[in-house]
Amino acid sequence: MTLTDSSKMEKNSSNMIHLTADSPSKPETVCIFGTGDFGRSLGQKMLQCGYSTVFGSRKSQTSSLIPKGIEVLSHAEAAKKSNIIIVAIQREHYNFLSELTEVLHGKVLVDVSNNLKINQYPESNAEYLAQLVPGAKVVKAFNTVSAWALQSGTLDASRQVKLSNMNDSKAKEMVMGIVRTLGLTPLDQGSLLAAKEIENYPLQLFPMWKFPIYLSLGLSAFLFFYCLIREVIYNYVYENKNVSFFIVISIPNRICPVVALILLALVYLPGVIAAIIQLHRGTKYSRFPDWLDKWMLCRKQLGLVALAYAFLHVLYTLVIPIRYYVRWKLNSYVISQVDQFIHSTGWHSDSYLALGILGFFLFILLGITSLPSVSNNVNWREFRFVQSKLGYLTLILCTAHTLGYGGKRFLSPSSYRWYLPEAYVLSLIVPCIKYQILHLCRGLYSITS
Amino acid sequence: MTLTDSSKMEKNSSNMIHLTADSPSKPETVCIFGTGDFGRSLGQKMLQCGYSTVFGSRKSQTSSLIPKGIEVLSHAEAAKKSNIIIVAIQREHYNFLSELTEVLHGKVLVDVSNNLKINQYPESNAEYLAQLVPGAKVVKAFNTVSAWALQSGTLDASRQVKLSNMNDSKAKEMVMGIVRTLGLTPLDQGSLLAAKEIENYPLQLFPMWKFPIYLSLGLSAFLFFYCLIREVIYNYVYENKNVSFFIVISIPNRICPVVALILLALVYLPGVIAAIIQLHRGTKYSRFPDWLDKWMLCRKQLGLVALAYAFLHVLYTLVIPIRYYVRWKLNSYVISQVDQFIHSTGWHSDSYLALGILGFFLFILLGITSLPSVSNNVNWREFRFVQSKLGYLTLILCTAHTLGYGGKRFLSPSSYRWYLPEAYVLSLIVPCIKYQILHLCRGLYSITS
Amino acid sequence: MTLTDSSKMEKNSSNMIHLTADSPSKPETVCIFGTGDFGRSLGQKMLQCGYSTVFGSRKSQTSSLIPKGIEVLSHAEAAKKSNIIIVAIQREHYNFLSELTEVLHGKVLVDVSNNLKINQYPESNAEYLAQLVPGAKVVKAFNTVSAWALQSGTLDASRQVKLSNMNDSKAKEMVMGIVRTLGLTPLDQGSLLAAKEIENYPLQLFPMWKFPIYLSLGLSAFLFFYCLIREVIYNYVYENKNVSFFIVISIPNRICPVVALILLALVYLPGVIAAIIQLHRGTKYSRFPDWLDKWMLCRKQLGLVALAYAFLHVLYTLVIPIRYYVRWKLNSYVISQVDQFIHSTGWHSDSYLALGILGFFLFILLGITSLPSVSNNVNWREFRFVQSKLGYLTLILCTAHTLGYGGKRFLSPSSYRWYLPEAYVLSLIVPCIKYQILHLCRGLYSITS
Repeated sequence: MTLTDSSKMEKNSSNMIHLTADSPSKPETVCIFGTGDFGRSLGQKMLQCGYSTVFGSRKSQTSSLIPKGIEVLSHAEAAKKSNIIIVAIQREHYNFLSELTEVLHGKVLVDVSNNLKINQYPESNAEYLAQLVPGAKVVKAFNTVSAWALQSGTLDASRQVKLSNMNDSKAKEMVMGIVRTLGLTPLDQGSLLAAKEIENYPLQLFPMWKFPIYLSLGLSAFLFFYCLIREVIYNYVYENKNVSFFIVISIPNRICPVVALILLALVYLPGVIAAIIQLHRGTKYSRFPDWLDKWMLCRKQLGLVALAYAFLHVLYTLVIPIRYYVRWKLNSYVISQVDQFIHSTGWHSDSYLALGILGFFLFILLGITSLPSVSNNVNWREFRFVQSKLGYLTLILCTAHTLGYGGKRFLSPSSYRWYLPEAYVLSLIVPCIKYQILHLCRGLYSITS
Repeated sequence: MTLTDSSKMEKNSSNMIHLTADSPSKPETVCIFGTGDFGRSLGQKMLQCGYSTVFGSRKSQTSSLIPKGIEVLSHAEAAKKSNIIIVAIQREHYNFLSELTEVLHGKVLVDVSNNLKINQYPESNAEYLAQLVPGAKVVKAFNTVSAWALQSGTLDASRQVKLSNMNDSKAKEMVMGIVRTLGLTPLDQGSLLAAKEIENYPLQLFPMWKFPIYLSLGLSAFLFFYCLIREVIYNYVYENKNVSFFIVISIPNRICPVVALILLALVYLPGVIAAIIQLHRGTKYSRFPDWLDKWMLCRKQLGLVALAYAFLHVLYTLVIPIRYYVRWKLNSYVISQVDQFIHSTGWHSDSYLALGILGFFLFILLGITSLPSVSNNVNWREFRFVQSKLGYLTLILCTAHTLGYGGKRFLSPSSYRWYLPEAYVLSLIVPCIKYQILHLCRGLYSITS
Repeated sequence: MTLTDSSKMEKNSSNMIHLTADSPSKPETVCIFGTGDFGRSLGQKMLQCGYSTVFGSRKSQTSSLIPKGIEVLSHAEAAKKSNIIIVAIQREHYNFLSELTEVLHGKVLVDVSNNLKINQYPESNAEYLAQLVPGAKVVKAFNTVSAWALQSGTLDASRQVKLSNMNDSKAKEMVMGIVRTLGLTPLDQGSLLAAKEIENYPLQLFPMWKFPIYLSLGLSAFLFFYCLIREVIYNYVYENKNVSFFIVISIPNRICPVVALILLALVYLPGVIAAIIQLHRGTKYSRFPDWLDKWMLCRKQLGLVALAYAFLHVLYTLVIPIRYYVRWKLNSYVISQVDQFIHSTGWHSDSYLALGILGFFLFILLGITSLPSVSNNVNWREFRFVQSKLGYLTLILCTAHTLGYGGKRFLSPSSYRWYLPEAYVLSLIVPCIKYQILHLCRGLYSITS
């Protein structure tokens, strides 16, 4: 459907099929209101994808930031050029649009705005826009993608563009066509009533995961101190043995299975409670209490957190025979001779193994979020959190694991053969360059600002 | 598209685009025939999603089970209120609908019925309905979701609603709109001829997996007895050594790689056979024999079952150095002194490790079925089987693993320090509460019934 | 939408909705130009799915290869029978179609062609076809599926059919209907401009993965020789110790973490560089240099290759306590007696463990590509590469692992008990049958050809 046809369509929608095939090669014009970050990025992308694009702005002068090939006109002039107007303005500045009601009549207004907080306003921005410009067909779209990432070609997270509009399937189809041309996947969410949900979506950060994660962290903390008292402090007080290095592997390997099993039991407990409530009430159609409802809704997440703890438990267990402490204990048991246990070696061996386990675990998590079906089900705030924050942490843990493995040998001349350092040293070059650059940048930044 | 407009559309379909934008806020009315479990659940969900809903029933009186806000009328009266009628009645009671032919003329009838057996009737329920009410537009939909789960908000399995209809894309679009509003994903399966397949779908339980799983179980059983004779009984008879605890880890670790390798070879064997048949016949376009066709179709499943066995083999192997038997053997080998092997300790150490391995393995399976792309490809019968049956088994195995780890220490006073039990004991609290509740429920149930 | 209605639709598109419901049971006719492999396979599948099918060909005689029930007519005659013509001819032979312009006017031409090289022609085949037959509606489709695999029912890779057409949504809808009826998933890619990309798609073999994989292989090769010199040759030259078996596990376990860490650092380095460039330029909207752009685009793949190396590192590490060399070293350390290290046993123990690790690793890769969301995101050339080439390699590695495990015991009479061989021998039967058959086939083939 060429956009330029849609004005004809206003008068003559009955033969809509045949009009559309007229001018496939003529580029369609899209108008963007607002020359902020998002507007410019979207404009550049549109231009790259073959759309003729115009900006509508208060100041109709071209700045150096405006992508070349895009004209900047006044709002009214720009709106006349196109049947689709993308409103890349913050909700706070929507007011002036009511003056343009006449120009915008019958046109498709695309609301791309996001808020700063969940449920910031009583009605969604798209509904507010529809009230301001009653004659226009408002479509909510594009707020779920990062336009800058889109423009720079580094779109890793969801390519899904959630759409909703005011029951005008024609307008929605036009926007969906643009979405497809930009290489994204449109996802029709129904009427404009869904706009509120669509606007809240990019602000979420794993809402269903909060309870399971806080619960597991709480349990872990409690169990850590429990084990610390029982295993380390008790030993120190009564047997004068220092086994403080237990907090690296031995205690985590006690915490993990306990938390995993408790969480797994919590997955199946609400079903039992629900059945009891139903038996008690004599009907299975009354609503459950709120706390039970919420509990039942996060069972999947509870189970997956339990799986993560179980996975860590497996890794901690399989690593047992490699630990210095275990080897020493076995040997000293076998030969029954008093072989001096070197406390710092116990710490060292356990520490770098533990860093490796945690790094590998986060790495697996990163791998799982790279699966297409998973990355399509998170918004880009969540995706960035996992891939950027957790990814960075993974890199740090893995570097620390390597450094720990090297230990004091790093500086010892005996570890150099033919002036060749051990292989692990090579792996530290690139990470160190990276940290160095980052450090330099911070230094420069603190000087210049 | 508002449903209330579709009556106008009957007369005047040419300007369908413009009618639709008229009354976005006016709630659409959906009629449901039948006040059974499914009908009531669907009605309540419809109501929650903003639809005005009416029930059509024989007895036009409100029972306490009917969700508040939904009127119950006679079938004819209810049908007049809406252009979409959801027929939530069992196929056996469809007959009376032929009397309503006039009222239902031109309306969209949604067939949601499921059968008890695959291919129970010669024609699909939807096609039967279309024959009974020739003037209506029959759409098959909603039979693939669990309406009760939908209503209670615990929809974990597929949100896909498979649709098919009698080549009336308009009617299909209307139903797809409802599907989207309920938060589900419509999946157009084509003409009403697909209805039979859609009706069979929820009755399936991993049909492609049956052969690979039975084959692997058969092989495992055979190999188990093979190894039992060779390793355990032979030793007992000729060397009077009791190594019965081998059946827990040593023998499974022999079975797993054997089954995995045989299954993996069976994945690639049919391709070779097919090539030979083609060479022999001199053409690659004739059909293969049926057994070969079926074999080739389940290669993916054969391969994945092989992977599962290989994964178990890896876990069983990595656990070797932790086993008491292996440690004892190594030690006794080293010091060459006659150290008494404690048979029950061998059993105990291997048992709880094996329980842990199996529990972890099932847990990983649960994790995989939680991936969005996997859970979208199973029906809810399959999803429930995995998440409920296997999940429960996982919990039991993990609890047993923990109990086995604790062993006799559970009651030994020496394992208490400052009156604190070992950490693993804490993990048993929630599972035990759960089992206790379940036990109580069964007790109550057996008293009351 | 029955296809036979679309001719009426040409004259009377306004009431398109109601015409469509007329004759649901009458089979639609699809015409296929060309009786080559692809045409025949598609024809047979169409026939199975209830379409009446005719072939258009130069020689209008039936050969034995033509599926029964499909007529072969001249091109003009065949085209008259249907409104949809699938052009299963190579682009080089398109010329004659310009003579049929009149017969093909208003019909839907489906271009299914693929090229031999990426960007072989300046314009896509579909655009070329549209130029040749200006009156027809050209739709690009079906080139992304393997029609033969489809016909033989072994469709494992993507079921997605990418479509694009010349802005005629009606023609596109008709083809999408056929796609759905054949059990495939249509994926609308927009206008015919997308045809070039669709034609390039099946020719790709993991284009985004090339740089990360070549980089990691290069690093691995360098590190292998580095470690070989440092660990093996140095020892041999200066200490006259032969530790050549280190190349099987010890050296890979040095290579893997190093490559993993370097790759992981390379994932996060370009972000830092990009930030510096932006700071330096004072704007974040100018384009990055090309090398940086490409680097940033393959970060996901870099990360996943790093994960693969990390996973191998974990497996190599966990296997340490099982190695003969490690056990021997521990024991000899403990008892401080000069126990002769048997060099060949070291080689043997490490080799079969390493083969098992690599086999398991490839097996996991196969499992991951079986996930629905992953297999939907690769074309069938890529899918075949993974499932067939890598699958075969997996089988060979696993067989070699088993043979290595058996070692010399295979022929030793002492390993037979009650004439029963060890269980692992059983697992070799099916793979050996397979290799035997393959060997026989090659023998036969070399005789006959």
